[in-house]
Amino acid sequence: MTGMMGEGWYFEDYEVGREIKSSSRTVTEADIVNFAGITGDWNPIHTDEEFAKKSVFGRRVAHGTLTFAIMTGLFARLGIIERTIVAFYGVDRLRFVKPVFIGDTLTAVARIVDKEDRGNAGMIVMEASVVNQRGEVVLTGTVRFLVKKRGEVG
Amino acid sequence: MTGMMGEGWYFEDYEVGREIKSSSRTVTEADIVNFAGITGDWNPIHTDEEFAKKSVFGRRVAHGTLTFAIMTGLFARLGIIERTIVAFYGVDRLRFVKPVFIGDTLTAVARIVDKEDRGNAGMIVMEASVVNQRGEVVLTGTVRFLVKKRGEVG
Amino acid sequence: MTGMMGEGWYFEDYEVGREIKSSSRTVTEADIVNFAGITGDWNPIHTDEEFAKKSVFGRRVAHGTLTFAIMTGLFARLGIIERTIVAFYGVDRLRFVKPVFIGDTLTAVARIVDKEDRGNAGMIVMEASVVNQRGEVVLTGTVRFLVKKRGEVG
Amino acid sequence: MTGMMGEGWYFEDYEVGREIKSSSRTVTEADIVNFAGITGDWNPIHTDEEFAKKSVFGRRVAHGTLTFAIMTGLFARLGIIERTIVAFYGVDRLRFVKPVFIGDTLTAVARIVDKEDRGNAGMIVMEASVVNQRGEVVLTGTVRFLVKKRGEVG
Amino acid sequence: MTGMMGEGWYFEDYEVGREIKSSSRTVTEADIVNFAGITGDWNPIHTDEEFAKKSVFGRRVAHGTLTFAIMTGLFARLGIIERTIVAFYGVDRLRFVKPVFIGDTLTAVARIVDKEDRGNAGMIVMEASVVNQRGEVVLTGTVRFLVKKRGEVG
Amino acid sequence: MTGMMGEGWYFEDYEVGREIKSSSRTVTEADIVNFAGITGDWNPIHTDEEFAKKSVFGRRVAHGTLTFAIMTGLFARLGIIERTIVAFYGVDRLRFVKPVFIGDTLTAVARIVDKEDRGNAGMIVMEASVVNQRGEVVLTGTVRFLVKKRGEVG
Repeated sequence: MTGMMGEGWYFEDYEVGREIKSSSRTVTEADIVNFAGITGDWNPIHTDEEFAKKSVFGRRVAHGTLTFAIMTGLFARLGIIERTIVAFYGVDRLRFVKPVFIGDTLTAVARIVDKEDRGNAGMIVMEASVVNQRGEVVLTGTVRFLVKKRGEVG
Repeated sequence: MTGMMGEGWYFEDYEVGREIKSSSRTVTEADIVNFAGITGDWNPIHTDEEFAKKSVFGRRVAHGTLTFAIMTGLFARLGIIERTIVAFYGVDRLRFVKPVFIGDTLTAVARIVDKEDRGNAGMIVMEASVVNQRGEVVLTGTVRFLVKKRGEVG
Repeated sequence: MTGMMGEGWYFEDYEVGREIKSSSRTVTEADIVNFAGITGDWNPIHTDEEFAKKSVFGRRVAHGTLTFAIMTGLFARLGIIERTIVAFYGVDRLRFVKPVFIGDTLTAVARIVDKEDRGNAGMIVMEASVVNQRGEVVLTGTVRFLVKKRGEVG
Repeated sequence: MTGMMGEGWYFEDYEVGREIKSSSRTVTEADIVNFAGITGDWNPIHTDEEFAKKSVFGRRVAHGTLTFAIMTGLFARLGIIERTIVAFYGVDRLRFVKPVFIGDTLTAVARIVDKEDRGNAGMIVMEASVVNQRGEVVLTGTVRFLVKKRGEVG
Repeated sequence: MTGMMGEGWYFEDYEVGREIKSSSRTVTEADIVNFAGITGDWNPIHTDEEFAKKSVFGRRVAHGTLTFAIMTGLFARLGIIERTIVAFYGVDRLRFVKPVFIGDTLTAVARIVDKEDRGNAGMIVMEASVVNQRGEVVLTGTVRFLVKKRGEVG
Repeated sequence: MTGMMGEGWYFEDYEVGREIKSSSRTVTEADIVNFAGITGDWNPIHTDEEFAKKSVFGRRVAHGTLTFAIMTGLFARLGIIERTIVAFYGVDRLRFVKPVFIGDTLTAVARIVDKEDRGNAGMIVMEASVVNQRGEVVLTGTVRFLVKKRGEVG
């Protein structure tokens, strides 16, 4: 029995080596249309079916940035960083490994690989990836974020 | 006089050292609301004004991932990669340097720092950043993408 | 020949026993995606096709709350409450009777079952339901709302 | 330390008397605009500022149905019903007690008041309400939903 | 007392000289953001506040096409063409007469100026305009659409 | 090699007789759903599949206004009017020639037919049309817009 009640993990709660797995979500045509609309990225590979049919992929693919955004959303939905994140610090070696197609179902997974005390906050480092319904890794990256320490004012 | 007519730059067109500057765009409350809705990332720092008022930022901030997504959209709108991009390869050292607030106006800038022939395509490497209306850098990263070579079938 | 011209029904215009039928609307995948994005309700039964395939329903279902929201929208489109509604008072015995799937076409129907003079406004009570293209009732409830009386300042 | 990891509460996990409190969320103009667009409910009290200024509320108010939809989303975000909900059964005595304005920040709270074994699933009954940043209750209702029992195939 | 019940006006119902007035709607920042996202028209005059401040308008303006789209929506909400329109034929002398700003409240008005029997359908011609809350005309055009005749199969 | 860098064409850059062709874009169900939501135009021919199946078209069709809005967006994406447009003046003889269905891929084309010096700005006149993936013209119109002249303060 679990259940996040308003507050996520503090620096002290993170254990190096712990694995995290998100819920899953199916990428729909509407997601790609809406994401083109939010970003202004209407590249034909995402929004022109006739062009995409003739491309190496054979059909429209999701924006890599959408897959990355979905990953951050899937992690956020876990409630781990609710009210305890200080800042999204950055990502290293973000790689769009395989194409994501309409109808693919994505899950975000991560392993905590490091934690560093930074005085009034702590840095968490996770090896993260996004996996599709066939078990293929479609995105990888090393995610860094700062979280609150217990007892620090925030 | 310029004007993209349906086709962007090929590998041969990229010059190392060339600088690129996008149009600008104001980040609105609607963008943050819509982005929370697309990603599922409803962290209170983005969507709960009462919480955000008491945070170190004093008000809601845009998702770092939204700033990144806006950057890719601003570059896409330049038309440079229209029909010529093969794949978004990845990003190195993506850093969310400063918070982005509702009403900030963002511009994406980049300098081409490397190009590598990869046989039937070419890798372009750009040092990219996003700058706000006060000239402050809010995001930096090294962006890598594969583009078509002239005469290659694609 | 009908045609709402800016103003709906006043308390005096409602007749107990009268039946109301809305236009119809097809529930699309985009509606479910957009509704998840507006509410933050990403339950896998609505947004994860792999999970939903193994559920009792065999595929993704619309949020019950979306069906309810669509019902209120279908009624609003009739123009009956345009400029004359005072407040949506509440709903009794709201029941989500059957699942709604992508591609189902919904119609809202209601029968006015009571009207009560409340001094400077009037309470209207309707037995409402939502019916799909196969004639199956998918939602029922007793809807209560306050409307203006003729001659009252509003 | 909490953290939902993919699976919510089973019937056995619910304790009568337990209280639940969600994260909070600020209702924005964009939410009202987007909700009008999803439902088709463009009643002037929600979308016409000139009309609303002259109304008893003095400005545009959120759709009651939007407040209800936000409540269900805030509860869903807790992760309690992730993968364990069987069906949203219904709501009794749903009441829109006070208007919700642009800029109000809403929190959903509930107390589990009953649980009933229904054979292969269990019914949970909660007295739910939505509270704004001034501590005012804006919506109340008795929410009923069916959840899985441990060991039942779902 | 009025109230559209599922069916609009047939050719025979239109009277030359009759005037039509829609409900009103406030144009929000979210509408402009969403419209840029649907069309891909991110011209700085609509989406870059810093640019717009220095323009002749002094702030962001709504897309003329958005005003036109809002006009067609306001007319559609009247229910006149519900189930009876055959086709939107076209518009003559569409003119964007004045800028529309965030916060402006628009009403669509029209006068039926001609009707022509076209055999199995009828052409309706309306002089249409959009007026803001200060009574200023912001858009004009001559709208032509085909509607069903009574007794024709549709 | 082309590439719009922030600034479009000035009056002096337009040549009568020049032809312009946009990128292409597939019209999706999500576009129609989102457009109904932005405009409030929920006519059954666009949003009710059961009704549309029995209509002359046999399925839902895109709003004519959506096709028009997509055309303006496709032209805007060319970058020609970026920072140089003064105002969208109007459209003459806008005609919705053929229905647009879900899945159709649209391209906007235009020929510059006239340019008129108007003192501190210039009027550009284009014969514009929208073509689908089968080469069928679905929309035509004469588009007029005002652009900056070089050296004029704007």
